Amino acid sequence: MNYSIIVYIIGWILNIEAVLLLLPCIVAVIYREPSGVSLAVTAAACLVLGVLLVLRKPKRQIFYAAEGFVTVSLSWVVLSVMGALPFFLSGYIPNPVDALFETVSGFTTTGASILTSVEALPNCLLFWRSFTHWIGGMGVLVFLLCLLPMAGGSRMNLMKAESPGPSVSRLVPKVQTTAKILYEIYIVMTIIEIVLLLLGGMPLFDALTSAFGTAGTGGFGIKNDSFASYSPYLQNVVTVFMILFGINFNAYFFIIMGKAKQAFQMEEVRAYLLVIGASIVAITWNTLEIFQSVGLAFQQAAFQVGSIVTTTGFATTDFDKWPQASRTILVMLMFMGACAGSTGGGMKVSRFLILIKTVKKELVQLVHPNAVKKIKMDGKIVEHEVVRATNVYCVAYVLIFAASMLLIAVDEQTLVTNFTAVAATFNNIGPGLDVVGPSGNFSIFSNFSKGILIFDMLAGRLEIFPILVLFSRETWRKF
Amino acid sequence: MNYSIIVYIIGWILNIEAVLLLLPCIVAVIYREPSGVSLAVTAAACLVLGVLLVLRKPKRQIFYAAEGFVTVSLSWVVLSVMGALPFFLSGYIPNPVDALFETVSGFTTTGASILTSVEALPNCLLFWRSFTHWIGGMGVLVFLLCLLPMAGGSRMNLMKAESPGPSVSRLVPKVQTTAKILYEIYIVMTIIEIVLLLLGGMPLFDALTSAFGTAGTGGFGIKNDSFASYSPYLQNVVTVFMILFGINFNAYFFIIMGKAKQAFQMEEVRAYLLVIGASIVAITWNTLEIFQSVGLAFQQAAFQVGSIVTTTGFATTDFDKWPQASRTILVMLMFMGACAGSTGGGMKVSRFLILIKTVKKELVQLVHPNAVKKIKMDGKIVEHEVVRATNVYCVAYVLIFAASMLLIAVDEQTLVTNFTAVAATFNNIGPGLDVVGPSGNFSIFSNFSKGILIFDMLAGRLEIFPILVLFSRETWRKF
Repeated sequence: MNYSIIVYIIGWILNIEAVLLLLPCIVAVIYREPSGVSLAVTAAACLVLGVLLVLRKPKRQIFYAAEGFVTVSLSWVVLSVMGALPFFLSGYIPNPVDALFETVSGFTTTGASILTSVEALPNCLLFWRSFTHWIGGMGVLVFLLCLLPMAGGSRMNLMKAESPGPSVSRLVPKVQTTAKILYEIYIVMTIIEIVLLLLGGMPLFDALTSAFGTAGTGGFGIKNDSFASYSPYLQNVVTVFMILFGINFNAYFFIIMGKAKQAFQMEEVRAYLLVIGASIVAITWNTLEIFQSVGLAFQQAAFQVGSIVTTTGFATTDFDKWPQASRTILVMLMFMGACAGSTGGGMKVSRFLILIKTVKKELVQLVHPNAVKKIKMDGKIVEHEVVRATNVYCVAYVLIFAASMLLIAVDEQTLVTNFTAVAATFNNIGPGLDVVGPSGNFSIFSNFSKGILIFDMLAGRLEIFPILVLFSRETWRKF
Repeated sequence: MNYSIIVYIIGWILNIEAVLLLLPCIVAVIYREPSGVSLAVTAAACLVLGVLLVLRKPKRQIFYAAEGFVTVSLSWVVLSVMGALPFFLSGYIPNPVDALFETVSGFTTTGASILTSVEALPNCLLFWRSFTHWIGGMGVLVFLLCLLPMAGGSRMNLMKAESPGPSVSRLVPKVQTTAKILYEIYIVMTIIEIVLLLLGGMPLFDALTSAFGTAGTGGFGIKNDSFASYSPYLQNVVTVFMILFGINFNAYFFIIMGKAKQAFQMEEVRAYLLVIGASIVAITWNTLEIFQSVGLAFQQAAFQVGSIVTTTGFATTDFDKWPQASRTILVMLMFMGACAGSTGGGMKVSRFLILIKTVKKELVQLVHPNAVKKIKMDGKIVEHEVVRATNVYCVAYVLIFAASMLLIAVDEQTLVTNFTAVAATFNNIGPGLDVVGPSGNFSIFSNFSKGILIFDMLAGRLEIFPILVLFSRETWRKF
């Protein structure tokens, strides 16, 4: 294990976090909020620690897959622990476990909260809370890749560990350029959303935090009723952008390159839009008696479907009170999640496509044992390694899900609460059903259960294996 | 596709069913019940159809994996359709979908019932209902293997399709002898249980039906309160035998061969007993406040854990009213199920062991990409093909589970009802929680949903792929 490079990169992560913390500091200055001190102190602490860690440049610049995993996981842990300090130091979240839960929920773009009233927080902390979504959405190490000089293969190993989806494809041959393009698309789309929200009469502060929550597919709101009190226009803008941020960013790259046709031919994007369309229609039909008008039912269904499938987690209505069929559809969407290579969470549409194709292939193989059939996506053969990894991912997913449910059952919450609490955190969504539904929150859990759910959020965002590697004896054995 | 041999074997299945139907006919004669006529008519119909189908001997005696799957699946469908006739013809279950549900539930050893009062059925139908468990437990084709002359490889292909578990091992080189030994163990253990139940003062009729339900890990009772009104001694006998019938029959073969040590060294058996022990202790502790005494809590926990983990489904108490932690443990046990090569259902302990080992291996491989690590069970390397099939099974399992839940959601039952209804049928357990809990039944579902659950029961018993093959276009394409 190349410890020196791991320490070096974590140092840079801390430096970046110090810079990022300056933004909420500015907010504190504008609103003259004393809690800004806790942000400034944290920024200073990050900088001191960060500078100390980057003082010694590592001799060997290369690192391998295992080091990539460890670096990414540790970076996220360090990022979250430091990011939690302002909430704790300011006294707004006195329980350190709660502060960590809230921050991990932010960075992993989950949006699950332990706060019973978000409106009690000062603006600077609300801003930081939403901003963590935006930072975590595209990934911090992807950002670092744009800046740091690093050996080529090493970059890919970092990117692989942090990027969502069964396989990472480079848009252009150079990893660094790929990272830059991704961040450019991310920033431009965020700005467009902010402008559209402002045009709808939303205050600047609300527009910024809402856009951060949408872009990262996070879901932290700044109002206790999430998005319910905003106008239909604002809700619709957010609906569209949630769905847009859940699309594989490769599609946007194709469009920029003038290959719009290729973007719409991507199997994953098609399946994603098809599932969204079908779910909206089904839920509109199922909730007609609640909303009385097709238009309103459709608008509300679209918002909630977009919010859940992209694992954002904003809410405009308490969908926990919807008919069972609609609730079931939403629970299913929680697991599918958005496209690979987007900012969304969940298992990802492309993984589902690969899993379905695996089962189909198995059936053909059973009937024709000698037939050689390959799994294809977008007309190209999916490498055996990717198929295998996807299957193992599915297995690990199920095992961790079951173990988490069993562990948090000690709190004696209902089965639906526990099931959807794990689903909502592991898939980085935010709200679940029952006690953790859109009108509830996660404060009812014990510190032990919160710890389990913190693990689930990190495991969900980093797609299980990077986090599991941290807990494997094999990783820390001398070799 | 060698259609003539498929038809021929189904013919024999019908002949066997005709013979098996004579037993409940005798019961009808003893109790002088007019419903016996419906049983006799069905037996006659089976015989006529069966004889017609076996008239033409197939020219080619060999058949391959695909034909094995199709034969087994179709046999189970035909067996169930004919087996449902007595319930329908006698008028006790007037809805044909209900009659089929009850019969499939019987043959697949599920034990889920659409009856609100089983005590309303005449003894001959109760006997047939429980007897289907015993027939389905070991498998009908395994029985046929003992009787029919067939090419060696063909036998293995039939056995593979019907036997539970990730891989089928022959106890002895000859498949036919293996099948005979299995049936001998099955019969002897059933007889021992009947004798022990009679010694406890149970009436002969109750002892027979209870033993059938235990041996097949089925769960149909002949009382409305399942096993609650029997004495603790009788409950304990059933507890022990449920757990015994959930053990891999290979262990018994080792014991018969004087290799008891080898039996207890089987990883799967150890894990199975360990999980049972841990679950009983945890539930005893968790339900202490309900039962007030450690002894009673332990006895009740043991019965319910044994019943659920072996997927039998007898109940002595309404565990739906237990604390959440205990309910969660039971739900988890529903999925694990019993050992491979037993009469129990679920995903099987050995599959879980393979899945856990797959994830562990993946972790090692991530840290040491060049390490070559093989998955081992009982000290032997598990073939790559078995590991792959287990992973694909897990994937198919999850997909079918999700699809079933979504489809039955149209009935607007609660999430817990739907989730546990699918879990209880797909894992061949019987009772779930909430509306389909131990004190409820499946009559509340629509015919459409019952159809889905019938599919799930068959897919669960035959372990998914044989049933999926029936629905694959590939199977019926001319080749």
